[in-house]
Amino acid sequence: MADGKLTHLDPLGRARMVDVTPKEPTHRRALARCKVFMKPETTALVANNAVTKGDVLGAARIAGIQAAKRTPDLIPLCHPLLVGSVYINFTLGDTYVEVEAQVETVDRTGVEMEALTAASVAALTIYDMCKSYDRTMVVGDLALWEKVGGRSGHWRREEAVEL
Amino acid sequence: MADGKLTHLDPLGRARMVDVTPKEPTHRRALARCKVFMKPETTALVANNAVTKGDVLGAARIAGIQAAKRTPDLIPLCHPLLVGSVYINFTLGDTYVEVEAQVETVDRTGVEMEALTAASVAALTIYDMCKSYDRTMVVGDLALWEKVGGRSGHWRREEAVEL
Amino acid sequence: MADGKLTHLDPLGRARMVDVTPKEPTHRRALARCKVFMKPETTALVANNAVTKGDVLGAARIAGIQAAKRTPDLIPLCHPLLVGSVYINFTLGDTYVEVEAQVETVDRTGVEMEALTAASVAALTIYDMCKSYDRTMVVGDLALWEKVGGRSGHWRREEAVEL
Amino acid sequence: MADGKLTHLDPLGRARMVDVTPKEPTHRRALARCKVFMKPETTALVANNAVTKGDVLGAARIAGIQAAKRTPDLIPLCHPLLVGSVYINFTLGDTYVEVEAQVETVDRTGVEMEALTAASVAALTIYDMCKSYDRTMVVGDLALWEKVGGRSGHWRREEAVEL
Amino acid sequence: MADGKLTHLDPLGRARMVDVTPKEPTHRRALARCKVFMKPETTALVANNAVTKGDVLGAARIAGIQAAKRTPDLIPLCHPLLVGSVYINFTLGDTYVEVEAQVETVDRTGVEMEALTAASVAALTIYDMCKSYDRTMVVGDLALWEKVGGRSGHWRREEAVEL
Amino acid sequence: MADGKLTHLDPLGRARMVDVTPKEPTHRRALARCKVFMKPETTALVANNAVTKGDVLGAARIAGIQAAKRTPDLIPLCHPLLVGSVYINFTLGDTYVEVEAQVETVDRTGVEMEALTAASVAALTIYDMCKSYDRTMVVGDLALWEKVGGRSGHWRREEAVEL
Repeated sequence: MADGKLTHLDPLGRARMVDVTPKEPTHRRALARCKVFMKPETTALVANNAVTKGDVLGAARIAGIQAAKRTPDLIPLCHPLLVGSVYINFTLGDTYVEVEAQVETVDRTGVEMEALTAASVAALTIYDMCKSYDRTMVVGDLALWEKVGGRSGHWRREEAVEL
Repeated sequence: MADGKLTHLDPLGRARMVDVTPKEPTHRRALARCKVFMKPETTALVANNAVTKGDVLGAARIAGIQAAKRTPDLIPLCHPLLVGSVYINFTLGDTYVEVEAQVETVDRTGVEMEALTAASVAALTIYDMCKSYDRTMVVGDLALWEKVGGRSGHWRREEAVEL
Repeated sequence: MADGKLTHLDPLGRARMVDVTPKEPTHRRALARCKVFMKPETTALVANNAVTKGDVLGAARIAGIQAAKRTPDLIPLCHPLLVGSVYINFTLGDTYVEVEAQVETVDRTGVEMEALTAASVAALTIYDMCKSYDRTMVVGDLALWEKVGGRSGHWRREEAVEL
Repeated sequence: MADGKLTHLDPLGRARMVDVTPKEPTHRRALARCKVFMKPETTALVANNAVTKGDVLGAARIAGIQAAKRTPDLIPLCHPLLVGSVYINFTLGDTYVEVEAQVETVDRTGVEMEALTAASVAALTIYDMCKSYDRTMVVGDLALWEKVGGRSGHWRREEAVEL
Repeated sequence: MADGKLTHLDPLGRARMVDVTPKEPTHRRALARCKVFMKPETTALVANNAVTKGDVLGAARIAGIQAAKRTPDLIPLCHPLLVGSVYINFTLGDTYVEVEAQVETVDRTGVEMEALTAASVAALTIYDMCKSYDRTMVVGDLALWEKVGGRSGHWRREEAVEL
Repeated sequence: MADGKLTHLDPLGRARMVDVTPKEPTHRRALARCKVFMKPETTALVANNAVTKGDVLGAARIAGIQAAKRTPDLIPLCHPLLVGSVYINFTLGDTYVEVEAQVETVDRTGVEMEALTAASVAALTIYDMCKSYDRTMVVGDLALWEKVGGRSGHWRREEAVEL
């Protein structure tokens, strides 16, 4: 906190969308994950594509990709950028569906928020399609796992940090 | 699953946005909560309104309210409705900020997804504004806590269910 | 044209979104269809879910449902309304994929534009996912096939009218 | 200010979108006006449809109608509603174009913000299309002129109040 | 199909928005056309600007331009890009209005979907404004006619291919 | 008008979004201002953060930043671009709140419309939050004050030009 991160502060101490125009566009990548915790019976329905509202993971994938593109419209101080690729995948556990979202671009700013937003909206879509079976589902463990490009170079979350 | 919840199934077993037109509009309410887990130093910055990007909770509140209105645009099979009120609040713990979102409407369908989406986007906004301090924040415990109105009447999440 | 349909005319002869507030909300339904004409090899790829960009019909269905909700945002003089159900289905012929979109609501105005827009955007999504195989695809035969509710009652397109 | 308008205050004194669900839907109407002040030569170009970017008033009318529909997406605490009619008109003076926007609906909340937003965006569109001729244009006198329906009944702005 | 177009395939065979970040931005152009088939009386109304809903072609042009900008928001796997120009024009035949949309940009990906979407939405707008005269209109012959830039160079649709 | 600004004219004299692809991206900046005129009592409420709807200037700042990003979606012939920074600030006078919006980017086209739109929407948000106190507020003096970059170089509005 003492390391001079005061670039966001305008003369009156109010919020602004910090200026990225002096930066050069570089390749950026970010990877985020979250989990939708649910009853084993619900996971089984998802796995067997037996949810009556339709193909849960197919719909969640599309919703996540679309959400990545809309991130700056949702997150107030997030810079707009053009996502160059979005990749959403799922791993099924006994009591959860894990969502993984990876976003890449060539831009002046990173794509962490795009990856986190894509994972969140994919998870919310899973919740929506399964909620008639299970109202007690919980979305958790939403975190950034990898970030490549920009001033901070290559960063990976360590397993032990996981909640 | 055996209780006849097959209303979403179209003749080819594909997804559809289930028909709510035969229902009468009634008063609906839903309450969702989640937590943004962060280092105590980061929580302190939020509490003291010392985050350089600006007023974190003020921005998150606006972002959550706006997200409630855009829920059907984000979640593919979610019915559009007109939210009648949105209320976002925050509780600060030592290592987390808890987000609470309550949505009300008079409509043919419930507002769970609106409350969950509002809480998620408020949490993502907190993440975005604090991420230059702490890349290891985790958003978790996103769950529905109360639901009023509609066929299922009044439902409350029991504490013990919490993750 | 001589039958008094001049209600849209404002004092200066300019466009306006005609007033529907004096009408009572009633149940409305509309059914639209179109075809994406393509090479038999492309149809076979769609049928076998072998298109490398992914599940073509699954993505097109989601895109069509989302487009139905966004119709008033796309078509300038179209009244906003809350779609109560959207149903998108596909029929595969040797040289085309037929898209069928049905939309229902309870409102003061009809849902023809929602059904036509849903069918169009589903067709465009099919085009997008198959275009690396076949740049010569044609979208055609987009028409309203049925309209229920409102002043004009129940209307069905006659087969012979088809292009 | 002393008359008990504290309904917007949540327990922590923070913003919320105030609850309109207890109200009954009634017919609402609002009328707003603004002016785009410009050089007489620019007004002449608009009047003669000689602006090279195209039909200024036609484009501004469409932009204003679309903006009325998007008002709750732009104004954070504005309730979503379904506009039932939008009417945009123009009066040309020697040194200004006056924009008039009227919006009607049947809802639990008023349409002032929709009328004001429609007028603003129509004015901004006029500015955009004429700005290569005149960078010194000013948009002003944006005000509510009439409001019908809701608790406050029928209200009209008095001429003398005009700025 | 056997020529190695498997770049869209992720490890699980699911959809992803394919990565365009390794490509260099180049100038791109695409031209699409479609027709709105209608009764001669309806075409005459459009030609004489006598449609009561207002200036049909003016509104359709604006709607098409706006749709070009929103293409990635409508088509799930479509990459976002910044359109550099959009040009919509119309040709009136005895029984149809032909829509032509041309889009240009400098980007890593082509603008075919932008041109096709612009033409579609312009056609839907024509339908919307004329539908009180003629419910049997058909939108057809939507096709890509020219594509410039990118790996495939300059491509033109041959007349004989037309449906 | 005689200086050859006919580049927007297409062969039929209709509107088009003029082609910016031949231009090189350069740094652009624009500054716009407007005023919300209100009763002294209302200004005092804003200054003391005593408006019951919440933090007026905080909400207006977020709304203005979000509006800058959505400008091309609101203004039909406005080119899409990626804003690199947005800065909204306020000055309180006895009978007005002045809004100042500055936008920067590196692009082929200027950001005047982004700055003007941000200022307008921030002003509309102030109006919305204060309107229960004062229905006679007026938004005025919306003008471009500075423009840097592009063919026209550095331009500043002269004080005397102010309305």
